[in-house]
Amino acid sequence: MAKKTDLSELFGEPVAGNGLLHRRFFLQSGAALAGAAVAATGARAESISAGSPPTMLKPGAQFNAYGMPSHWRENIKRILVTNAPPAREVTGSSRTPLQFLEGTITPAGLHYVRNHNGTPDINPDQHQLLLYGMVKQPLTFSVDSLMRYPMRTEIHFMECAGNSGGMNAPMPPQATAGDIHGLLSGSEWTGVKLSTLLDEAGLDPKATWILAEGADAAGMSRSVPVWKAMDDAMIALYQNGEPIRPEQGFPMRLLLPGFEGNTNVKWLRRLRVMDTPMYARDETSRYTELMPDGKAREFMLQMEPKSVILKPSFGINMQGAGYYEVSGLAWSGLGRVRRVDISADGGKSWAEAALSGPVLPKALTRFRLPWMWNGGPVTLMSRTTDEKGVVQKTHADWAAQYAPRQNFHFSAIQSWAIGADGKVSNIYV
Amino acid sequence: MAKKTDLSELFGEPVAGNGLLHRRFFLQSGAALAGAAVAATGARAESISAGSPPTMLKPGAQFNAYGMPSHWRENIKRILVTNAPPAREVTGSSRTPLQFLEGTITPAGLHYVRNHNGTPDINPDQHQLLLYGMVKQPLTFSVDSLMRYPMRTEIHFMECAGNSGGMNAPMPPQATAGDIHGLLSGSEWTGVKLSTLLDEAGLDPKATWILAEGADAAGMSRSVPVWKAMDDAMIALYQNGEPIRPEQGFPMRLLLPGFEGNTNVKWLRRLRVMDTPMYARDETSRYTELMPDGKAREFMLQMEPKSVILKPSFGINMQGAGYYEVSGLAWSGLGRVRRVDISADGGKSWAEAALSGPVLPKALTRFRLPWMWNGGPVTLMSRTTDEKGVVQKTHADWAAQYAPRQNFHFSAIQSWAIGADGKVSNIYV
Repeated sequence: MAKKTDLSELFGEPVAGNGLLHRRFFLQSGAALAGAAVAATGARAESISAGSPPTMLKPGAQFNAYGMPSHWRENIKRILVTNAPPAREVTGSSRTPLQFLEGTITPAGLHYVRNHNGTPDINPDQHQLLLYGMVKQPLTFSVDSLMRYPMRTEIHFMECAGNSGGMNAPMPPQATAGDIHGLLSGSEWTGVKLSTLLDEAGLDPKATWILAEGADAAGMSRSVPVWKAMDDAMIALYQNGEPIRPEQGFPMRLLLPGFEGNTNVKWLRRLRVMDTPMYARDETSRYTELMPDGKAREFMLQMEPKSVILKPSFGINMQGAGYYEVSGLAWSGLGRVRRVDISADGGKSWAEAALSGPVLPKALTRFRLPWMWNGGPVTLMSRTTDEKGVVQKTHADWAAQYAPRQNFHFSAIQSWAIGADGKVSNIYV
Repeated sequence: MAKKTDLSELFGEPVAGNGLLHRRFFLQSGAALAGAAVAATGARAESISAGSPPTMLKPGAQFNAYGMPSHWRENIKRILVTNAPPAREVTGSSRTPLQFLEGTITPAGLHYVRNHNGTPDINPDQHQLLLYGMVKQPLTFSVDSLMRYPMRTEIHFMECAGNSGGMNAPMPPQATAGDIHGLLSGSEWTGVKLSTLLDEAGLDPKATWILAEGADAAGMSRSVPVWKAMDDAMIALYQNGEPIRPEQGFPMRLLLPGFEGNTNVKWLRRLRVMDTPMYARDETSRYTELMPDGKAREFMLQMEPKSVILKPSFGINMQGAGYYEVSGLAWSGLGRVRRVDISADGGKSWAEAALSGPVLPKALTRFRLPWMWNGGPVTLMSRTTDEKGVVQKTHADWAAQYAPRQNFHFSAIQSWAIGADGKVSNIYV
């Protein structure tokens, strides 16, 4: 280890309890970081070896048509949570292993999947999108015809309404961030604005809802407000640059930025314009919020501001006292993340984290904060405030809104307890 | 086809020759696009079928740990251009099929690869990065130790110095955009700023160059100016959210935003700080520019402003007269793309394209422009101007700078000729 120097001389005083430092150390230029040698874990090189590593002694692997991750990182895979086989294993989810990832883009191979009856295999040359109901002229669109339309490219998160549902169990689940919060991913989406198609068909001014129907064996169907369809809704044809994958709706899905995942209907086959919601099975039997008076709130569609610290997090333990970067993801279905605050003392004091730009609306935002851990027990928390001024609630305040065991739209602050042994556990604060 | 209305009533007059329209149609809200029905290719739906497609009649496929693209799009793969097997097939490249992609992020599996002696298989637990030479204290860094450092996340393009080299042949190559220009990809990169490590080691103020060495069997080595190392250079550990893949340098590569690809040394094992360039094999025998006087210009490191139209392009032919979106990629190693202009009359008149935001420095930028093709022969061109005011040159002006058959740093305007039959061919203008 490189030698350590006096802390306060280099970093100034901590800005919040238990060693949280000012975010400016990430915003300055390299030269200004000169004092940050305290952060270093580089080892002194005692001698310069003249030898070559074995990989330099023989040619490497050949080229291939479609690359894959390193076999040294095979542990980085989606977390499968499905119903029992046989037959029911097509119902459930595969979750993004958030704690092993960095940045804000999720590789499509690790994007979460929530299926109700498996991933259909759709022949794109036979697939048609039908737009009908309260329009002047019903229209059908093939994949090829949609390719002729003006397109948009936008980065957005996708989150299942049931994400983090386990966090409303009586005891906090001791599981990784991906297990708990991994029904969440981020992508660059490209497609055709739905408003363009509705304009072409001639939307009836009295229309208020649109039923979106999928071509999967679950017949997934959701009602979408017309205001959203005319705002930023998209028929997505591409994800992260390539054609959208089968598990994400190939050949096309509805994309409703910031709305709960299931409304972003995959394998989209029909859009029916109406003047009422359909009250389809998937918006009455589930994806509603149980309120304390026993009633269910319907159509809570926008995902609320939320965040999760990933380094450290359950399973990503501390390696001894010293310098760390606290890093994680923040997002809001209402717009941009305005700020993320970090506490290392269970919420008594907070330090504002640095946000990695560009901070985009309804997109995953990476936050970072330098931290000097003294090796003692601490409680780490992150709290998002979005551009509408909505602030992420504590676990207790969130739970108080709903009936016990309400599982949808969990958006409370995630707290990680760190023991003197460096182990991270999940706690409710 | 939906019925057509009078063009000028809907779009106003074209803003440049041969039917190029104003970009504002992409910048307006959905409602403002109401008149754009002329753009539509949606077919009238004559009846609403009550039947279900076959994919709704049986459960779909199960979940999996790492997803892949649709088998219906197996044609979207990297284009292999290698030396002759046996033994030499590890030398060459695999290229990104740009004409089949959209947006600005390249999926890692389709990122271009330029290898000089294959992809090494490096055990990350045994890999060390050595930083030595003109520093106070030589240091070594393991992957685990680098994970403790402050990180950055940034979106940048990567382009091989030899990209588009075929465009300086006497006759224009009749090949797809990916074949010609596909040594170009875009990613979100996350890693540690190189300046942080140099600060820790204690950079000698007299140092001017750093030799970066790879652990592959080609021993790829390039000299990098210290100003770049202290500016925005990064030791990249993640690409598009997941650990960087073997073909991109696993477990770590040097990332020099905007610099020619080969200087972004993959499988990085040593950084030697010096007060002179090394004049390594890979910067003398190649990656230099042949000048008209017979001399070779060395260390032309920054990639110049450039662009290519992808829709339409060679192999992506027109489907009859009517409305189209002209779409493509622009980029500059000097900073942000300021504007992209499109000509449909071989450069006589130009229309400014819409840029899909966020427009980021040294990153791929998607441009789009509406176009009404009258079905006659036209020549389509795109021209980038970057934030430094540097403008992409014509083919003739570019070629005049160099000796004949100079193959590196081709950055001239790409021109596509479209025949009355809708076929697209490559021409020099």
